[in-house]
Amino acid sequence: MHFQTGKNIDFERNDELLKKAQLVQKPLHSKIVKAKDIVEIGQGKGIENISLQPSEKKLANLSDYSLGKGDSIILDFGDHHVGYFSIGISSVGSPMDAPLFLHLVFAEQPIELVKIKEPYQGALSKSWLQEEYVHMDKLPAVLKLTRRYACRYVKLEVVDTSPKWKVVFDHPTFEAKSAVTLSDVNLPKTGDKLLDQIVEVSAKTLRDCMQDVFEDGPKRDRRLWLGDLRLQALANYASYNDQDLVKRCLYLFGALPTSSGRITSNLFTNFDEPIPDDTFLYDYGLFFISTLYDYYKQYLDLATLKDLFPAAKREMEQALLYLNGQNLVEIRSDWPIYIDSGNNFDKTTCATAVLLYALKQFISLGKVINENMTEYAEKLKNIQKAVLDLLYDKETGFFVSGKQKKINVASQVWMVLTHILSDDKNHDLMKRSMERFYPFKDITTPYMYHHIATALFESNNYELAIKLIKKYWGGMLELGADTFWEAYKPDDLSFSPYNSLAINSYCHAWSCTPIYLLKKYAK
Amino acid sequence: MHFQTGKNIDFERNDELLKKAQLVQKPLHSKIVKAKDIVEIGQGKGIENISLQPSEKKLANLSDYSLGKGDSIILDFGDHHVGYFSIGISSVGSPMDAPLFLHLVFAEQPIELVKIKEPYQGALSKSWLQEEYVHMDKLPAVLKLTRRYACRYVKLEVVDTSPKWKVVFDHPTFEAKSAVTLSDVNLPKTGDKLLDQIVEVSAKTLRDCMQDVFEDGPKRDRRLWLGDLRLQALANYASYNDQDLVKRCLYLFGALPTSSGRITSNLFTNFDEPIPDDTFLYDYGLFFISTLYDYYKQYLDLATLKDLFPAAKREMEQALLYLNGQNLVEIRSDWPIYIDSGNNFDKTTCATAVLLYALKQFISLGKVINENMTEYAEKLKNIQKAVLDLLYDKETGFFVSGKQKKINVASQVWMVLTHILSDDKNHDLMKRSMERFYPFKDITTPYMYHHIATALFESNNYELAIKLIKKYWGGMLELGADTFWEAYKPDDLSFSPYNSLAINSYCHAWSCTPIYLLKKYAK
Repeated sequence: MHFQTGKNIDFERNDELLKKAQLVQKPLHSKIVKAKDIVEIGQGKGIENISLQPSEKKLANLSDYSLGKGDSIILDFGDHHVGYFSIGISSVGSPMDAPLFLHLVFAEQPIELVKIKEPYQGALSKSWLQEEYVHMDKLPAVLKLTRRYACRYVKLEVVDTSPKWKVVFDHPTFEAKSAVTLSDVNLPKTGDKLLDQIVEVSAKTLRDCMQDVFEDGPKRDRRLWLGDLRLQALANYASYNDQDLVKRCLYLFGALPTSSGRITSNLFTNFDEPIPDDTFLYDYGLFFISTLYDYYKQYLDLATLKDLFPAAKREMEQALLYLNGQNLVEIRSDWPIYIDSGNNFDKTTCATAVLLYALKQFISLGKVINENMTEYAEKLKNIQKAVLDLLYDKETGFFVSGKQKKINVASQVWMVLTHILSDDKNHDLMKRSMERFYPFKDITTPYMYHHIATALFESNNYELAIKLIKKYWGGMLELGADTFWEAYKPDDLSFSPYNSLAINSYCHAWSCTPIYLLKKYAK
Repeated sequence: MHFQTGKNIDFERNDELLKKAQLVQKPLHSKIVKAKDIVEIGQGKGIENISLQPSEKKLANLSDYSLGKGDSIILDFGDHHVGYFSIGISSVGSPMDAPLFLHLVFAEQPIELVKIKEPYQGALSKSWLQEEYVHMDKLPAVLKLTRRYACRYVKLEVVDTSPKWKVVFDHPTFEAKSAVTLSDVNLPKTGDKLLDQIVEVSAKTLRDCMQDVFEDGPKRDRRLWLGDLRLQALANYASYNDQDLVKRCLYLFGALPTSSGRITSNLFTNFDEPIPDDTFLYDYGLFFISTLYDYYKQYLDLATLKDLFPAAKREMEQALLYLNGQNLVEIRSDWPIYIDSGNNFDKTTCATAVLLYALKQFISLGKVINENMTEYAEKLKNIQKAVLDLLYDKETGFFVSGKQKKINVASQVWMVLTHILSDDKNHDLMKRSMERFYPFKDITTPYMYHHIATALFESNNYELAIKLIKKYWGGMLELGADTFWEAYKPDDLSFSPYNSLAINSYCHAWSCTPIYLLKKYAK
């Protein structure tokens, strides 16, 4: 796994834009959630066949169960939530002659409860594992953890009491937080049970990622990523329609470019001041323009467009610098492209497609505010010509990528999304792409599946799109998803982009788009 | 290891006495201690040859050392203290893209830093190991731990940051707490360098155990035990002379007997109300009377004596019930006797001796307040006669113990302390006891060594007493003691009463008595 670090990046800071981001900041909604059940690890539907099943212990009798050294209990809050956990703890038996040493694990999915016990070999920091070790010197007391967790399950594991007393628990409570409430939303009805379920879980996934900003995942990294923001905003327009939250995020990105005008792939917003990360992704940077475009189309908010167009323009200027002499994007190590977690396919044609995609949106935005876009229109034409001349293989009817002219599904999808081909050709290309590549081997994220599904809809392959959504997002539901995941590879259910099923995020915003797709492309 | 638990013990609660205990409660002194050095684990003088040696890293440059995953640093605060730890933590490198996961270990002795890493097999709760696991979501910050620790060393172990940043530390600070301050005390000067050092370490040990009550050990169990209190009070009279703290502890014990009048061996005072423990020890119960006796002798505080004499009387009545038809104490499982952690010797003769010892003090106290003590004086005579007739073996000149009439050092010591024999005989008995039993095989605690040393002084074996103190307490100093220990067995340096050198307490009040002995018996 490669981590970018930029030692001497000079960031600008536009206080006026930051202030506007702050002005639309709103307090979160709170909801008290009570535990629903006591459960136990067993075999059943779930990742690696791990599921949680009702225990013989009944929640109503919770405070009858005394736990000593090595004992544990798993509480099920009935659904995925993001927020704060508290529980009453008392000692029973002799007076408390030692502290209580308690280990707590918070899990979105049952598999985390199993994997967290194994030695951690993940590529991301172990600190993201949702666990705490707590000593309590004085019982009875209410343990109120001050950190935020994303979970459905809470495991309470008594490391030790003493031989003379045990503990009992009462009133396990979760204070769930979100910028929005599910009950305020009329979810689109598809007339299909599975699709309706996918819509509902999409809405829950999005809700739990909508906090002070749009987070990528509330378990981890809890960060405002541009690639995720773009998709969250679209899903949000189709559901909660929280204008301010998108606006806030756009202003934050627009306020903090590098001195050359490049926009960071992500921001840290949990500190006293928002901090731009030193990770730059070619596609994510351009998605600032796409997100602004989608936002303007949704709200026709001319003031915001005028405020942020200059930032969009500087970003586009930076992106255009990466065109080579042939008017194709040449990705360099100082500005890699994401597309998908999978890295077993060439991404250079995708890069040119994403530039095309954003450039068209950029020109359209410029025209709205009467900017002279002639020069950009010219560039667009040149790129389109280069793509058709150099990347489109007329014989096979597929786009090729890289020096070895490889054909992969991502290139077709992104080119379809640019609509560089006619609608008929697009239709045919996606149909043949599915025949050739499905089931996909190297695609690992719902993020890329979103783009495949979108390309299917955009190319008028409605049935194929619906089938893909049912199969892919439905596949997660079959495995017991309460919210959709960061990574899901149907041909490898033990897949983690970070070499650890314990660290995977099981509520990840970029997987929430079916609610948007099924509304936008509804027949 | 056997733990007593009493399921249906009916405790009384004398609110008037409790109120008097509260009236003399005082705020603690605070002292800010700065770290003195950065150290590393090495071979040298210390338990199991583990010692801490200056690191190449210099404390002055602390914030130059950045620590990532798996890195650690050990801070040396220069001496043993009890209190609260805080430290500044900042991230260096890229923005903080994950929480910090930090493990902290607090150690009184270097050996704890080694043993805490091994699987814990101790008989006492693992929760006493002084360690914390902390997640910090936002840096820079000051980590202020809210729990109290007893330590000289603090190990900071970075479990994980992320591949993109590390942490640096600054301003490690320890806020030391005690009811007393060492600087206010004129320590007795013996004219001997080693003895002076023993006196000083005794005073430090006592200071760190003097908190809201006299604690047995500030690392563990942090509890007011009667056996420890008796010795602490004596050492306190010879040093800090804090009358109120002894008074407070006596009132607490006097206020909370069982409904039959038995006094608990220990109290929990860290809860909203003091809680008597369900552990009863025959000798510890009687030491309520001894402690009251010593207190009265020190301060001639008649009011306290009058308040607490009724509790002393009920305790004595309870103890006398355990005399058998021969006027010797018969220990039963519902009221065991402590004497020492070691259990490889018969303790029944010790039990009769402790009763004799306390009964004499009780009669003396009764006379002060003009109680009719005739009946008790009669009992005393009967017991003394039984001891001389049945326990004193005129042939060998040793006291025997148990049905098998075994001779052990503890029986001799406790009988000498009762002065049942003439001074000459006592002198001779202790001299021969040393010849016969020294070096002691089954004695494991400074608590019992205190009684041996006292018996040597009381029997006018001054040189032997001094030699023993130099050898035993000096032995701990040679191993690097900053304060004296709960357990020290010169013939087994890996000894723990609880099967774990990690859980042993290395600042334990019952080992602080040389300051009292060397003052009281000074020549």
